[in-house]
Amino acid sequence: MKKVPEGVIERLPAYLNCLLQIEAEGAATTSSKRLGQMTGINPAEIRRDLVYFGSFGIKGVGYEVKYLIKEIKGILGSDHPHQIAIIGAGHLGSAIASHNGLRNHGFFVSAIFDKDADKIGVELGGVKVTALKALPQTMRKRKISIAILAVPPTAAQAVADLLVEAGVSVILNYTSVMITVPDAVQVHNSDPVNELLYTLHYLSGKRPGVK
Amino acid sequence: MKKVPEGVIERLPAYLNCLLQIEAEGAATTSSKRLGQMTGINPAEIRRDLVYFGSFGIKGVGYEVKYLIKEIKGILGSDHPHQIAIIGAGHLGSAIASHNGLRNHGFFVSAIFDKDADKIGVELGGVKVTALKALPQTMRKRKISIAILAVPPTAAQAVADLLVEAGVSVILNYTSVMITVPDAVQVHNSDPVNELLYTLHYLSGKRPGVK
Repeated sequence: MKKVPEGVIERLPAYLNCLLQIEAEGAATTSSKRLGQMTGINPAEIRRDLVYFGSFGIKGVGYEVKYLIKEIKGILGSDHPHQIAIIGAGHLGSAIASHNGLRNHGFFVSAIFDKDADKIGVELGGVKVTALKALPQTMRKRKISIAILAVPPTAAQAVADLLVEAGVSVILNYTSVMITVPDAVQVHNSDPVNELLYTLHYLSGKRPGVK
Repeated sequence: MKKVPEGVIERLPAYLNCLLQIEAEGAATTSSKRLGQMTGINPAEIRRDLVYFGSFGIKGVGYEVKYLIKEIKGILGSDHPHQIAIIGAGHLGSAIASHNGLRNHGFFVSAIFDKDADKIGVELGGVKVTALKALPQTMRKRKISIAILAVPPTAAQAVADLLVEAGVSVILNYTSVMITVPDAVQVHNSDPVNELLYTLHYLSGKRPGVK
């Protein structure tokens, strides 16, 4: 059993997306050069990463697209279905619920929760919005361990507490609030402002420094 | 001039968010322990990171919140305003346009573009939606160098080409498509499916491996 380093894991979703795009275009093989152009990652780094999958690429032929897709899905765990819950049926929750890419990758929105009485019962992407207070029993009953937090910042921590009570394993936090959860729960912060802040330092045309 | 490593830069938005939260709570100082609890980052790593800002923390007193906020904003470049454009006035574009955190961090949505005639002229977060075909001249005139791509996947590459024509520097790509742009343009992929795929490997309770 050879461990795949964290840094490689981080790049796998990007590789997978490219490979699925290349497969949809009808190509059976591809090159690290092509993957490099699509991802912006150095082709030499891509070749090193793909060695972890016993995939060395054949000179003049390249990498087998279908094989790589299968291997990467296996490593990520997206080769079998996962139930997810979305909390917050506002614009962001609606955008995620109707995202076509979710099903393609085996993610099924199994519940959507909101506090607003006007939204409860409304269908979003084929799923009826449920009352927030029913979250713990609904998530346990449907065995949902992944939650997407898309609520207003003022509600973020209270809802996170509810998710912990419901036995959640992973929270994708789309709010600007840093939530506090037990160590066993993984939080991945995806606030657009954070992403913008991170991209800012590219604008100066150089890595920033301090005096 | 001491260079701040890329890995440290990546963590700065999270530190900044925590510090702003702590400041809002009325505290003048904080500890690496508190920042660690809020971010999930090891306090020892936080202390090493903050040394880059000449901020060592005083034993028994901690870090000066206001000073750290000022330094981090300076490094990230969020101490002065930035104009951004959102392309796509659907659910996701609307969610981002109405995000309160943007202004707090100096990001001003200066233009929103859509192809759909029904959406043109509609106000989102106080900004009128403009026709997509007016994108290049509008972005140049308003000196917008940051764009958020929130269009359907089939339109992603064509709109990216338009953004390149408009002289964009940074694209935050919320579509599932890997777009191709010249090297000078930075692309940051934020598709929720990619984020979900990345979080999946936490679910197994261990780092994944290959045989």
